[in-house]
Amino acid sequence: MAATQAYEPLSSESLGTRLAGITLLSEKVGPDPAAWQVREVGDGNLNLVFIVEGPSGAAIVKQALPYVRLVGDSWPLPLYRAFFEYHALTRQAARDPGSVPEVYYFDEAQALIVMEFLSPHVILRRKMIAGERVQGLADRMGTYCARTAFRGSELSMKSADKKSDVGLFSGNVEIPAITERLVFTDPYFDAEMNNHTPALDPVVAELRGDVALKTRVQRMLMKFVSNTETMLHGDLHTGSIMATEDEARVIDPEFAQYGPLGFDIGMLTANYLMAYFSQPAHRGADLADYQAWLLETIEGTFAAFEAEFTRLWHSERTGMLYPASLFEDQGQSSEGALKDLLREIWTDALTICGIEMHRRVLSLAHNADFEDIADEAARAPLEARNLMMGRALILGADGITDARALTTLAQDYNGKDVL
Amino acid sequence: MAATQAYEPLSSESLGTRLAGITLLSEKVGPDPAAWQVREVGDGNLNLVFIVEGPSGAAIVKQALPYVRLVGDSWPLPLYRAFFEYHALTRQAARDPGSVPEVYYFDEAQALIVMEFLSPHVILRRKMIAGERVQGLADRMGTYCARTAFRGSELSMKSADKKSDVGLFSGNVEIPAITERLVFTDPYFDAEMNNHTPALDPVVAELRGDVALKTRVQRMLMKFVSNTETMLHGDLHTGSIMATEDEARVIDPEFAQYGPLGFDIGMLTANYLMAYFSQPAHRGADLADYQAWLLETIEGTFAAFEAEFTRLWHSERTGMLYPASLFEDQGQSSEGALKDLLREIWTDALTICGIEMHRRVLSLAHNADFEDIADEAARAPLEARNLMMGRALILGADGITDARALTTLAQDYNGKDVL
Repeated sequence: MAATQAYEPLSSESLGTRLAGITLLSEKVGPDPAAWQVREVGDGNLNLVFIVEGPSGAAIVKQALPYVRLVGDSWPLPLYRAFFEYHALTRQAARDPGSVPEVYYFDEAQALIVMEFLSPHVILRRKMIAGERVQGLADRMGTYCARTAFRGSELSMKSADKKSDVGLFSGNVEIPAITERLVFTDPYFDAEMNNHTPALDPVVAELRGDVALKTRVQRMLMKFVSNTETMLHGDLHTGSIMATEDEARVIDPEFAQYGPLGFDIGMLTANYLMAYFSQPAHRGADLADYQAWLLETIEGTFAAFEAEFTRLWHSERTGMLYPASLFEDQGQSSEGALKDLLREIWTDALTICGIEMHRRVLSLAHNADFEDIADEAARAPLEARNLMMGRALILGADGITDARALTTLAQDYNGKDVL
Repeated sequence: MAATQAYEPLSSESLGTRLAGITLLSEKVGPDPAAWQVREVGDGNLNLVFIVEGPSGAAIVKQALPYVRLVGDSWPLPLYRAFFEYHALTRQAARDPGSVPEVYYFDEAQALIVMEFLSPHVILRRKMIAGERVQGLADRMGTYCARTAFRGSELSMKSADKKSDVGLFSGNVEIPAITERLVFTDPYFDAEMNNHTPALDPVVAELRGDVALKTRVQRMLMKFVSNTETMLHGDLHTGSIMATEDEARVIDPEFAQYGPLGFDIGMLTANYLMAYFSQPAHRGADLADYQAWLLETIEGTFAAFEAEFTRLWHSERTGMLYPASLFEDQGQSSEGALKDLLREIWTDALTICGIEMHRRVLSLAHNADFEDIADEAARAPLEARNLMMGRALILGADGITDARALTTLAQDYNGKDVL
């Protein structure tokens, strides 16, 4: 397919003919497109996703649509997000090898990426709703968050390279604008596209009447849009992770932008906590055990983050920030500086965590963790616990000492009748 | 002059011939270049600056050189800084009309800007060494800092415009790199290009041994390079302000970049404080009066900043941040949010202020305020007071309640025998 051909969405029928010329795809799947089986499986909010299977194997073809799939063509969305997804994938692959699907081919004009088919991986959120564990998840994701955060910042990168990359990603406007609106703003007033479980009304009114809360959230929005500390995944929820029983891979970085070091791990933690709070509606006798595993996963993720970030601080701190010339080369320790920075990352992460917990219950895009609970009477009190803990995190991030204190707080809210 | 002509530095002799075709220049100065009088007056560190005078009036021609003038061609510096200066000047003119020289002409290939000749303005630093006052200075500069900070941020700008502008200015790499190195890093170790008054050795050793201090400074460097809150002047010292007895204008924004809201006013305050601490060597009987005026200027600048920022918060908060939809439209006040944000700006400003006070005494580029004191025995104790107050600001910014507390601290250090 010539890169200059005008954009046209693929269909299961046209895909074989249109992509037959892509060498790496033929090598992966098989040389004869007539023998390819193509299924469109995109269940996300934004894109077409095809699984292409053939005699030699399989591949994924992901193509952007010019609008928000969840809403329809009334909400146009630029195709260039495939460009940013491609650039994010290549950077993530370099910074944490093996963490993301391998890219076989990118076509900017068609806004499509051909990439590795992950199998037997399934979406982590589905596993958590089903009560399945992923061995090593905490280590894997904590390490991923630390490596991408550290290696995408000027702790590690050459300043000119980082500035150039900030310039590149500053072109990603409309996709981050979704986050700015749906995550940081809409939940806190009666915005047009919002929806929430009606029984939550009193809690929602309390949140929307809390000026101190909204002030903290808006300050974090300001950080999100103007603290270009590192390249973020930008949408690292449990629907952006595919896992087997002992492996996890990160997908869908089209929301990539430069932002705060604690953003990705904060959003991820929120999604673990929402899995946790929703479990009483999904589990039976294994409830306590599975909830305990989710909290261990949260603690383990932060432990792995801190360990890897610390390792990189001592072994790869080659950027302009906190240079060895001022510390180690003078026989002086930089441990205090590291500790202060980790503390700031932690506080930002908890604030972002609380905001994500709110938006997934109050704004447009909800989570299956709660949405799969058909019985509103069962769902509302679980969502209410989640909302109130989110508020406690946003208002109290400074006072939560460590990951154990965080999971203890979750246990407290899990036992509370908030409604 | 054709824009496609290869770059060539102007000289006083060649300027008339080469710039004869610029209509607006001819209109300002006079139609016959043979009647122009051209003087090169660049006393800065980076550029050629010509005053062109003729029968109708005068204009300034500023041309970038491909190296740091202060150091020579061993330190190359890209010509594109004229491009960023031009774009900064046009933005500053829009955000605070009348605050900067009017631009008549810009030639990117020749890296030159033809602009308004300010007369009888002189460099503010020279006026302060001479003990001269500028009526209304505090109001003017506080207002300038507030308007450029607020109107260059997403408190006011459309998000897409601001992101596009961040992308544009991310191309300004080597000029901010000077600040990153000379301001934030070199002062705190024995860097190659440093120099300081030898008698300061014990104080310098104390500063360089202070790990907590260096940690704070590096955290501020991280903010400087990654908090794109607003478009900064980036080098707003008293050598970047030209003044008469009752007017002040801002020049030389080639260090423009996106950075923290408190950066410009923080650097400016440092230069007022250095003027203050150096006065005992420049004044006679009028010492106390003039020092009092300098401290009043500092207090007045912050008062004007806060007043104007507050006015804009209530009248021009049309950007994405802290939207009225979450506050005023709900019958809820945003005063607390404003107060929190002003507090953060204040703390950042004091930290930057302390860093600037250090680098002007320890790093490459010193200030005439101190350098004009030929007698080292007189200079060293004044520089030492300045250094120690800088340290107090960096370590204690959180605890300094307001501008009065800041000027009281300055009076304390002014009476101290630090060496």
